Amino acid sequence: MAIGLTTPKNLLAIEGIRLGVAAAGIRYPDRNDLVLMEIAEGSQCAAVFTKNAFCAAPVVVCRQHLATSAPRFLVINSGNANAGLGEAGMAASRESCAAVANLGDCNAEQVLPFSTGVIGETFPTQTLINGLPAAHSGLDANNWLPAAEAIMTTDTIAKAISEQVSIGGHTITITGMAKGSGMIRPDMATMLAYITTDANVTHDVLDSCLRQAVDNSFNRITVDGDTSTNDACVLIATAKAGNDCITDINSAQAKDFFAAVARVSQHLSESIIRDAEGVTRLMTIVVEQGKNAAECDAVAFTVAHSPLVKTALFAGDPNWGRILAAVGRAGVAELDVEKIHIYLDDVCIVQNGGRDADYTEEAGQAVMEQEEITVTIKLGRGDITTRVQTSDLSYDYVKINAEYRS
Amino acid sequence: MAIGLTTPKNLLAIEGIRLGVAAAGIRYPDRNDLVLMEIAEGSQCAAVFTKNAFCAAPVVVCRQHLATSAPRFLVINSGNANAGLGEAGMAASRESCAAVANLGDCNAEQVLPFSTGVIGETFPTQTLINGLPAAHSGLDANNWLPAAEAIMTTDTIAKAISEQVSIGGHTITITGMAKGSGMIRPDMATMLAYITTDANVTHDVLDSCLRQAVDNSFNRITVDGDTSTNDACVLIATAKAGNDCITDINSAQAKDFFAAVARVSQHLSESIIRDAEGVTRLMTIVVEQGKNAAECDAVAFTVAHSPLVKTALFAGDPNWGRILAAVGRAGVAELDVEKIHIYLDDVCIVQNGGRDADYTEEAGQAVMEQEEITVTIKLGRGDITTRVQTSDLSYDYVKINAEYRS
Repeated sequence: MAIGLTTPKNLLAIEGIRLGVAAAGIRYPDRNDLVLMEIAEGSQCAAVFTKNAFCAAPVVVCRQHLATSAPRFLVINSGNANAGLGEAGMAASRESCAAVANLGDCNAEQVLPFSTGVIGETFPTQTLINGLPAAHSGLDANNWLPAAEAIMTTDTIAKAISEQVSIGGHTITITGMAKGSGMIRPDMATMLAYITTDANVTHDVLDSCLRQAVDNSFNRITVDGDTSTNDACVLIATAKAGNDCITDINSAQAKDFFAAVARVSQHLSESIIRDAEGVTRLMTIVVEQGKNAAECDAVAFTVAHSPLVKTALFAGDPNWGRILAAVGRAGVAELDVEKIHIYLDDVCIVQNGGRDADYTEEAGQAVMEQEEITVTIKLGRGDITTRVQTSDLSYDYVKINAEYRS
Repeated sequence: MAIGLTTPKNLLAIEGIRLGVAAAGIRYPDRNDLVLMEIAEGSQCAAVFTKNAFCAAPVVVCRQHLATSAPRFLVINSGNANAGLGEAGMAASRESCAAVANLGDCNAEQVLPFSTGVIGETFPTQTLINGLPAAHSGLDANNWLPAAEAIMTTDTIAKAISEQVSIGGHTITITGMAKGSGMIRPDMATMLAYITTDANVTHDVLDSCLRQAVDNSFNRITVDGDTSTNDACVLIATAKAGNDCITDINSAQAKDFFAAVARVSQHLSESIIRDAEGVTRLMTIVVEQGKNAAECDAVAFTVAHSPLVKTALFAGDPNWGRILAAVGRAGVAELDVEKIHIYLDDVCIVQNGGRDADYTEEAGQAVMEQEEITVTIKLGRGDITTRVQTSDLSYDYVKINAEYRS
């Protein structure tokens, strides 16, 4: 069960954005699995996608369509990832876009397709197309919660949030949703996240904002180290709020806007970890005193991916030797272990590379029994800090990924 | 339970090597946990150790002693890794060596210490020392099986083998033992392996032989990606077989000797994977048609470490999309996915980057139901092949690493 998450409340409509959902029956019986998002003309759209070399057909089609056209619709399905299907997968994505364009009176290039679910199973294109009229006729600005629920796969709870910020006397609203629970090690993108705003900004500013937000949120979480073939994060601005267009990424307005988008993306990415497959405990890994972000990240992700650290986290066992071993194998050149300090919350476990003289098993145990733990690793090499969040490796993680095909 | 392993039989004595065991009570009740190996004067010894930056105290002491002296004794304990203990750990290793030297009438620098077990717990030096007289008085050339059992931690079965090869009319015998089951991703070494022979070889030849053997055996297995702080592999040659000294690594004699040592080290490393923590299925990953070994290894280890691939292996689920996603995130530059072919045994699952047209779920299922599966990944980039072996991720892996501190 998800840790510290409740069903999203008070989601705010974004002028220029409408959402429709339908139960197309792609894989799951008796639930919505199809979302149509309508985007007003004149909106800007920025997007980042998976760096996995095997990117899914909808990712390829999205990139092609974004290169030529401003999107008017997103079509999102859960239950089938449309990945690993070669030309048949490309045709499925293109036919889905054409069907949406037909209903929505636009060009197929103005439709972006997104899919998540099982990789490598034949995509039921006609089933999706049959669900489109219901989604289209239900388009409504207040459908954020049903949409966030419809994009779920192994997620146990919907993930969405709204923020408001005042810019130049105008209230700017941002509403975003995301899905993701397993195969989570986003690399320049996330599973699927959609953030929309009524702000008036140039495309360049929007693109910078998205990349900065993603780098400090979705790119800083991992469940299992497995970067998905379908990761995508989209930021849409409808320009309906009436603010003067934000054109300079260094302006005060841009900074306020970036900060608000960052809060939304951080909430969504943290929600993914809180709902990680089989999660019982969360670990935030803070690596301080690095020479650069790359080496801090190498240490943080090595600890975050260690099956031995993750099973000790599941057990609530302060088995700090496993953390130390993971730090040591992270590949940091000329690592001086005698400068390393490691803390569980505020309990020092390793001092100058060895067990802290004052450490007691009871103090470590008390920290590990919490649902949320912070491990701080000080490298003693510089002044850079990075942070990564991860979940534990439980029986339920194995069950979810062994008993069901996800 | 281990796959396809039985208790080692017909282990051959090596002239110049005697072994003694004792139940010192370091951690486990009622079982042997201490091994003393006596090495005849005039023997050569080569060794490789973990590349983990946090190497354990006995690894540091071994390196120091090997730099100055030819070893006369190895002292090996299970139950406590003597890692992460700073100066106290160094003192524990040095005191253990001094106690062995006292019993064995040699210098402390002629003793090499090895420890495996829990990291970060105070090392019971006096308990080990108290066990030494029994181990010393029991020294015997035929103690290989009790020794292989005494070095076990989470291993479920002893790992050892003997080989013979005729070189220049002389029968050369090689006997080796190893332990290891979890925290297995050897990097230039293995958990703990000891290979001995009566061959007469120079130190340089022995060292080359060891590095070549390790690179093609212990460095090609992974259970959980966690490189241990205590990995060590030692190769000892007593020169008692009477063959003319092998001095040239390119000679026919050297090649025959290397091949025989390689068979022993491959048997031992494969035994470790067959006894991996919680193992129910084995996967051999063969990456062909790479530009170089590094990129083949990157793909092979990414697949081998993927929790999603490992849980699908546990489930016997031909969820090949997870293999494909892992290949795609392995970081191979300019990977052309349309040249990639993937096979489960001889069943083609991916052809030119997409699902093979003739693939059927039944054919994939039939392969996955076996205990041992080979995944072959053809990259279409060159002519280099590498191979890695791994185990699945089962409920028992989580149980072993969550319920007990290992």
